Amino acid sequence: MTRPVGIVGAGLVGSGWAIVFARAGYPVRVFDSDARTMATFAERVRGNLEDLARYELIDSPDAVFERVEMVDTLEQAVGEADHVQESVFERTDVKQAIYRQIDEVVGADTVVGSSSSGIPASEFTDGLDHRENYLVVHPVNPPYLVPVVEIVPAPWTRAEAVERATTLMEAVGQVPVLVRREVAGFVLNRLQGALLREAWALYEEGYASLEDIDKTVSAGLGRRWSFMGPFETIDLNAPGGISDYAERLGGLYLDIARQRSDPQPWSRNLIARADAERRGALPKESLGERTKWRDRRLMALSAFMARSREAEGE
Amino acid sequence: MTRPVGIVGAGLVGSGWAIVFARAGYPVRVFDSDARTMATFAERVRGNLEDLARYELIDSPDAVFERVEMVDTLEQAVGEADHVQESVFERTDVKQAIYRQIDEVVGADTVVGSSSSGIPASEFTDGLDHRENYLVVHPVNPPYLVPVVEIVPAPWTRAEAVERATTLMEAVGQVPVLVRREVAGFVLNRLQGALLREAWALYEEGYASLEDIDKTVSAGLGRRWSFMGPFETIDLNAPGGISDYAERLGGLYLDIARQRSDPQPWSRNLIARADAERRGALPKESLGERTKWRDRRLMALSAFMARSREAEGE
Repeated sequence: MTRPVGIVGAGLVGSGWAIVFARAGYPVRVFDSDARTMATFAERVRGNLEDLARYELIDSPDAVFERVEMVDTLEQAVGEADHVQESVFERTDVKQAIYRQIDEVVGADTVVGSSSSGIPASEFTDGLDHRENYLVVHPVNPPYLVPVVEIVPAPWTRAEAVERATTLMEAVGQVPVLVRREVAGFVLNRLQGALLREAWALYEEGYASLEDIDKTVSAGLGRRWSFMGPFETIDLNAPGGISDYAERLGGLYLDIARQRSDPQPWSRNLIARADAERRGALPKESLGERTKWRDRRLMALSAFMARSREAEGE
Repeated sequence: MTRPVGIVGAGLVGSGWAIVFARAGYPVRVFDSDARTMATFAERVRGNLEDLARYELIDSPDAVFERVEMVDTLEQAVGEADHVQESVFERTDVKQAIYRQIDEVVGADTVVGSSSSGIPASEFTDGLDHRENYLVVHPVNPPYLVPVVEIVPAPWTRAEAVERATTLMEAVGQVPVLVRREVAGFVLNRLQGALLREAWALYEEGYASLEDIDKTVSAGLGRRWSFMGPFETIDLNAPGGISDYAERLGGLYLDIARQRSDPQPWSRNLIARADAERRGALPKESLGERTKWRDRRLMALSAFMARSREAEGE
């Protein structure tokens, strides 16, 4: 019999993870110390499962939901688990507190992944009995629509825990990537941050509007990047491949980087201008509706991607 | 009767443009001073049109191809044109030479866009009689599959030329973005360069493999960026929108940027390592086949995008 997956923290991220594991056939046990969060959890998961069925990404919402059990104590969630996924609020002291509790009730062979998007595991697992089984397993939101997961071991995480987390992610249809050593922002947010920094600078200096910078990505760069990464993109963009491309364009890119060698904070004035432009395009009260639109687009894209890979025999 | 569009330079980029204009119903006149390029032009365009029909992106390859006329002189291509799109080899002296020739035979009201991906128009149009009608109109390859076009006026380009180029791009189904002043790399390649620089650095420092960095984009960041830009992405990633996001994450991104404040050239050793990893994944002789795969994926994505926008009533 398959051992259950424990979910600790039943908010937006935890409920996304519950869907990922239950969709793949795993029994899931969910715990949150906040009663109100637990109360909204079931409703949120049910709504998301119905959306997924509408886009033919799952067959039966009921069959998936039946695998999800809400439990009353932390011990029930993690005690028999093969893997625990922690998704509590992202603040070091909050993470430290929950890991001290997990450490007391967890099995010696249970791997515990943290959904931390930026705090490395070494900052909240040091000194714990089972710290060699703890690491970061960072998803993108919502994880059942965007498959990448960053696996980031602490210096003391044992190799077997990394392997088991990686294997599990593959088994549930995610795309694990290994960040070999801890680094601020891991890989995903460092790449996003680098592009954002240039985008903010171009906007600040008046070269283009926010909307036009967004279009440059959504109608340009992002099309290729949705199915192949930046290195493969440039590998196919010069007759001799990536080394040919680097020879041709390395100089231009170095010049551009040198113009940006004194990074400054995004000023209040800059942020206020950007905020005004965005709120003109999308009023604050419409953010929730637009987020639902984004998720519908991601669902349609997921379904399309699955068909494309099938058509290509991948 | 619609005045024709002139295409100067019938290579990869010029043939892509011929498809964009002819697909939208415009008569197109194509000239290239190189007979071999002209000889391969027709075959390449026909092949691409057949691919587009297979993905239901056009109805009749013949009907589109009939609008494309190959002509024997530069004057025939540009003399009666409403818009000329120049796509000759990207080197300043080559651009200067062709613009001197264009300037002698072009009408006083014809707008001339250059497909230059990095050289600003001021470097090859200064001193010409009709320089106020010349500007950069930079596509992504292939333009009939990736719709963004950067419109970059020289300091002397008149506002009407910018407006006409923008209106024409919208009329033929492209997505024009305005780069208000000339800047090295324009917007698209500056954004790409910023992300690439961080990607190369993470690879060089051993944090992740090329393949895993690619997956972080293709299975992560690139999914959202294929239909919304980086600013809209962060606007939807914090409860209070973009200003809330900037408050929360500005500090992290500033720290990361400060770690990268001394940009160095990509070393020969680094490029050689990356080349070895890529050639292990994809042998050099397979680059052409993989490029065809990329174009098939882009075609399928274009068809999907059109359906999605329709479903959303956009």
